[in-house]
Amino acid sequence: MRHQWIFSGAIESIDLDEEGGIAKVLDSHGALLGHAYFNTRSDITGRMVSFKDADPLEAIMKKVREAADLRKTLFDTKQTNAFRVINGEGDGLPGFVADLYGSILVVQVGTLGMEKLKDSLIEQLKEIFPITCVFEKSTAPARKKEGLTPKEEALFGELPKECEILENGLSYIVNIREGQKTGFFLDHREMRLKVRSLSKNRRVLNCFSYTGGFTVSALAGGACLADSVDASKMAVATAERNVNLNGLKAEGSRFLKADAFDFLKLDPLDYDLVILDPPAFAKSRGEVKGALRGYREINREAMRKMPDGSLLLTASCSYYVNAPLFEQTVLQAALDAGRDVRIVGRHIQAPDHPVNLYHEESDYLKSLLLVLH
Amino acid sequence: MRHQWIFSGAIESIDLDEEGGIAKVLDSHGALLGHAYFNTRSDITGRMVSFKDADPLEAIMKKVREAADLRKTLFDTKQTNAFRVINGEGDGLPGFVADLYGSILVVQVGTLGMEKLKDSLIEQLKEIFPITCVFEKSTAPARKKEGLTPKEEALFGELPKECEILENGLSYIVNIREGQKTGFFLDHREMRLKVRSLSKNRRVLNCFSYTGGFTVSALAGGACLADSVDASKMAVATAERNVNLNGLKAEGSRFLKADAFDFLKLDPLDYDLVILDPPAFAKSRGEVKGALRGYREINREAMRKMPDGSLLLTASCSYYVNAPLFEQTVLQAALDAGRDVRIVGRHIQAPDHPVNLYHEESDYLKSLLLVLH
Repeated sequence: MRHQWIFSGAIESIDLDEEGGIAKVLDSHGALLGHAYFNTRSDITGRMVSFKDADPLEAIMKKVREAADLRKTLFDTKQTNAFRVINGEGDGLPGFVADLYGSILVVQVGTLGMEKLKDSLIEQLKEIFPITCVFEKSTAPARKKEGLTPKEEALFGELPKECEILENGLSYIVNIREGQKTGFFLDHREMRLKVRSLSKNRRVLNCFSYTGGFTVSALAGGACLADSVDASKMAVATAERNVNLNGLKAEGSRFLKADAFDFLKLDPLDYDLVILDPPAFAKSRGEVKGALRGYREINREAMRKMPDGSLLLTASCSYYVNAPLFEQTVLQAALDAGRDVRIVGRHIQAPDHPVNLYHEESDYLKSLLLVLH
Repeated sequence: MRHQWIFSGAIESIDLDEEGGIAKVLDSHGALLGHAYFNTRSDITGRMVSFKDADPLEAIMKKVREAADLRKTLFDTKQTNAFRVINGEGDGLPGFVADLYGSILVVQVGTLGMEKLKDSLIEQLKEIFPITCVFEKSTAPARKKEGLTPKEEALFGELPKECEILENGLSYIVNIREGQKTGFFLDHREMRLKVRSLSKNRRVLNCFSYTGGFTVSALAGGACLADSVDASKMAVATAERNVNLNGLKAEGSRFLKADAFDFLKLDPLDYDLVILDPPAFAKSRGEVKGALRGYREINREAMRKMPDGSLLLTASCSYYVNAPLFEQTVLQAALDAGRDVRIVGRHIQAPDHPVNLYHEESDYLKSLLLVLH
């Protein structure tokens, strides 16, 4: 994996047929570095799609096949049929993300260059996976910089109102159109499995629960109860439906539409395992300070009241809050709360979200598993 | 978890009955900070065993129970009966490590203070776990600084020549007396499970295989073959015995006594999954430079020849080579080898080895899972 971005300031001249098109990239001595697609409207003017003298379209199609092969290695589709097939820069395909939900492919296009390539990429994916519907959910604000408007529409087949996916043998209802991201937080798959393995006979709180991925996992792992808290009424309702869908007993479990900050302050928090998995508090560098305050507050409130020997799974998906900064903040929260914490797990996103070391933004999800005394 | 070490330079005066004994710790204003055990021969003169006005012996016994409770949460002993029960500073018990292998407890005492406390700790552990033998394997060179000599002897019961343990449902023969560490690399338990999940129909190489933990896991996960390479004849022989013990088919798999550096250079390395889990290349700060050379070399040699789309699990257990340094070195090896790598997993040691954030040394094991192109 090599650097894929070419900033406008690094370019001497561009010989381009049309915006978004592919052109050769030469170094200052005229030597061929590879091919990139270009958009002169964007600060990230070029994005490499192939290196050296490889044919760019062939290289792109090869990357799609490689990405698919990796997922086939990672997943037994009889157990898990929802995963990220293409992770943009993380799979060497800048600007293109594709998530598979059973037979539905959800694509996100971030750049003009990929807009021009997307049909070929989708055709290639349709040859590899049994796809009945392709839905484009391109809503990232960064599209504006590329001269693109938001787009949410079916490109092939018809998108059902909801679909049902399988993950590690458990079923979940996903609303692709109205849900967060492409419908489900696929990147926390391994953490859901971890929670399942730690939940036996435990009272579990799933804070910022969304549609109850951790709730279902906890109950499937033998939790005696699992409470779900989320600000969205629709999300907690779906969490309850997901519990029922798996035939799990949830006697005494609550599905609460509530502000998680308030809940953490007001509830006694008599739980043996608490999951704090908030949305990204920092969506830009300027929001980091406020984000750290937020992480410190929710972790402090939880740690203040959780019983001795209890476990806390605390996560941050804010790229701008990197792993050391997040860890320091959580440690500070422990000091605030007067608790001893030990780290018994440190995790990143699931392997269908590969990290490209030359694209820092692909390295975004941090989870810490702590034991409290 | 708070700072547990008191360096000699930070001490104004000590009021101690005997070396290794417990005394109050007061700050410069005379306020009680807690209790520590002291050894004036050592640079780390004091190690805190309790904080504030807690009774030190009661606090120590509470920590033992807490550590045991955590393990009971983590493990179903019908599937996994070998784990670290006490992880020194990581469990708030500086200088004392205890590993359980079925009904055999192996203890490591690192300090004079713990030497004096060990009998009480062992008694407490015998009340919690069904222990038939306690073997002391205190061989760390750092004991010298404490005025202690190496000690390897049964403190209770009789140590069998070998024992058989269960980990995630697989069996392993462990030679506690002659084996590495306390007999088995318990800290890689989660990585063995990961390898098992990734091995189906793959050709696997386990380099620095020791007694074949990864080999057995790979074959149990459906690997079509799994080669083991280790410099110790005894280790590879045990690896083969462990494969047979689990009734695994290993047709075509090799168990080779060989230098791993040589093997990586000379073998064609036609594997879909390679595990590089060498011993600590840096055992002190002065050895870091040489260690980085070593990590770079083995990773480069493997990456040079492994096929497209193959997976590399590469690890370092050298505390002195921290995670960012290790990652840079592996990335450098990829550049040397002209390969694209993406990170699909970043892991630390298993949760029975808790990390104390105030004791950096407890944060030592790094594993990277990479996909190569």
